[in-house]
Amino acid sequence: MKPNLDDIRAAQIALQTIAHNTPILHDERLSRDKHSHVYLKAECLQRSGSFKIRGAYNRVRQLNADERQRGVIAPSAGNHAQGLALGAKLFGVPATIVMPQFAPLTKVNNTKAHGANVVLHGATFDDARAYAHTLAQEQGLVIVHPFDDAGVIAGQGTIGLEILAALPDCTVLVVPIGGGGLISGIAIAAKAIKPNLRVIGVQAAGCAPVRQSLNSGAPITVPSAQTIADGIAVKRPGDMTFAIINELVDDVVEVTDDEIAQGIAHCVQHNRLVVEGAGATSVAALLANKVLLRANDVACAVLAGGNIDGNLLSRVIEQVMVRDGRYMLVKLAMVDRPGSLSPLIQLVAANGANIIDIFHRRALWLAPLGKVGLELVLEVRDQQHGSAVLQALRDAGYVVERESLGAWAE
Amino acid sequence: MKPNLDDIRAAQIALQTIAHNTPILHDERLSRDKHSHVYLKAECLQRSGSFKIRGAYNRVRQLNADERQRGVIAPSAGNHAQGLALGAKLFGVPATIVMPQFAPLTKVNNTKAHGANVVLHGATFDDARAYAHTLAQEQGLVIVHPFDDAGVIAGQGTIGLEILAALPDCTVLVVPIGGGGLISGIAIAAKAIKPNLRVIGVQAAGCAPVRQSLNSGAPITVPSAQTIADGIAVKRPGDMTFAIINELVDDVVEVTDDEIAQGIAHCVQHNRLVVEGAGATSVAALLANKVLLRANDVACAVLAGGNIDGNLLSRVIEQVMVRDGRYMLVKLAMVDRPGSLSPLIQLVAANGANIIDIFHRRALWLAPLGKVGLELVLEVRDQQHGSAVLQALRDAGYVVERESLGAWAE
Repeated sequence: MKPNLDDIRAAQIALQTIAHNTPILHDERLSRDKHSHVYLKAECLQRSGSFKIRGAYNRVRQLNADERQRGVIAPSAGNHAQGLALGAKLFGVPATIVMPQFAPLTKVNNTKAHGANVVLHGATFDDARAYAHTLAQEQGLVIVHPFDDAGVIAGQGTIGLEILAALPDCTVLVVPIGGGGLISGIAIAAKAIKPNLRVIGVQAAGCAPVRQSLNSGAPITVPSAQTIADGIAVKRPGDMTFAIINELVDDVVEVTDDEIAQGIAHCVQHNRLVVEGAGATSVAALLANKVLLRANDVACAVLAGGNIDGNLLSRVIEQVMVRDGRYMLVKLAMVDRPGSLSPLIQLVAANGANIIDIFHRRALWLAPLGKVGLELVLEVRDQQHGSAVLQALRDAGYVVERESLGAWAE
Repeated sequence: MKPNLDDIRAAQIALQTIAHNTPILHDERLSRDKHSHVYLKAECLQRSGSFKIRGAYNRVRQLNADERQRGVIAPSAGNHAQGLALGAKLFGVPATIVMPQFAPLTKVNNTKAHGANVVLHGATFDDARAYAHTLAQEQGLVIVHPFDDAGVIAGQGTIGLEILAALPDCTVLVVPIGGGGLISGIAIAAKAIKPNLRVIGVQAAGCAPVRQSLNSGAPITVPSAQTIADGIAVKRPGDMTFAIINELVDDVVEVTDDEIAQGIAHCVQHNRLVVEGAGATSVAALLANKVLLRANDVACAVLAGGNIDGNLLSRVIEQVMVRDGRYMLVKLAMVDRPGSLSPLIQLVAANGANIIDIFHRRALWLAPLGKVGLELVLEVRDQQHGSAVLQALRDAGYVVERESLGAWAE
């Protein structure tokens, strides 16, 4: 039932002109910082924006003529939707994707753009799933499971073949786990070729049933799924994937949302790649020292996908700016009379800082009578420049207070 | 003097284990929108974050033993600094980079991290340049020009060889122009191999001397350089590069900062690549229909670099969010009494919108007496959802006004 190396090799041949053999990039910064060799398998550059096309296409290929004519269906508002839509289109098989009614228009449109019939139904994902099963029965459609399926797992396993072909010296693979399809396929391929290679899975701490499941010997369901890595927020691993993980995966670690955000930021800043939360958990685990790297290890982290929401991406980048001291928040009190703001603004400009936001308040912050409270968000070149700007303001007689930035609350 | 195909082939051999043969990615969205075949040469994934390592390393390789021992120098606060620092380090040649005193710490640190001696001198780039020449004379260092140099041009030309090896059917190359080193090398390689291939240069409209120079038959200096594409804000093309561009480049087009920002956003959203302003001008020119694509054209746009400032990147992403209707600004008037804010916030939440900013003002916007003005920045799922939220507020009796967002002023 579970796929073997031959199944994965067959999938690789089938996918040859369909999916990209995505680039494997040397992460110079992480390699330097960890005194190791770290590579990134950039599945964020895959067609449809994630690895999902591999498994979906491979599953569709296994349908018989009758099933192909009727078509496939899946409930999904995530990467599986786009992967299955594209995979089915490339095979000329009709695909239906059921999403909850509140699904963002961009996801609906991206899935439609790959030729799928998108049905919006129900308020929650569970409603959409139930409706997909109803439609499947009514119309004789084949449900393509996002992970607990031998054909899907074999397709994802082609990533393992590509990594070992490009990096035969690889000793450690770091792979995100949601339902477990990706790591199952990769582990089967990698361990068959190189049994002493370590495969480490990574879950988001906000939804992490796999360690517990391994602990109790059977798949466990966690009650909630609260993480920015929505692509792997799966509350229960699959039966087939759990068995494979239990047999082949060496360790499973967990990363917090803060660590995931730093993983995203690292990819943007140092590798010029846009990676979604789920996709960045692998690099996050390396950054946060959750995976032991020995001096001669050659590690490859799978960046599983790049379909990140713009809002999350811009917030992650802004937090990097604040951490790096590029943005600073300053409070000061100044004389409350017409025109008194002008010399302050000139002083800030003369010192090379840029005003991002300004709040001018009379009543707040216990400003002395006759004075007014002012809150400035300034963009500066770096920490040192920020300190120089503060000093210049103090030298000019302003009473200035720099707001310290607390650790993020999870 | 100017390099030929053999020089570029020699550079390619020298660079084989030094620079990445960067991925060439199929831009599915742009191909679909332009009914054409568009590929991206992702030099943003190059070592040091841009193509500059190619030319710099190739130039350093041509030094004699005596020059290698003394070392190289360049004034630069941009990609040339990092490229030369890394290129020299890989050759074991000492490198000195002169930057103005106000250079951002990240650029100083990135250049130091590649092993260069960074000298901070002078208030402006011209001061730094003059000091670099003084140091070169005093210490017998070889100045490596960022573009007007045969060795540098030959190194950049290796990109042309890589594109034509991967895409032999390519008919159009779209290449950013700053000083002209990149397009000169690429044009020499590409036209030697495939004479009927078109090479189109792209400049930022805020600093665009090349069309004028071609028009008057000699390099012209433009008075100002005001663009977000700081990597190509060069006021005068080189003498050698001008001659090559004049001979081999088919056309030169210009893109505005707004078009460049859309190019950056396109790369982030649809290709999961982080590209700087200068690097995105090529894809911007295609997006803005500045380059004619015929039905059977196979175009390749060179994404020259990815060293973008986080502030610019997050602003570009936010503007996309506003354009896509994901953020909206709403003004409303409501009864000014304690507790009246609470039902409003509950109503917004019940309709699935997220409050990003809130301003509560008594005196402004001519709110009727007894009412208070409220400004909300809301995050919604899409345009349609935004309209539904507005309607829900109106149905509840609030007087609501949605701020329309004007076109960006350049």
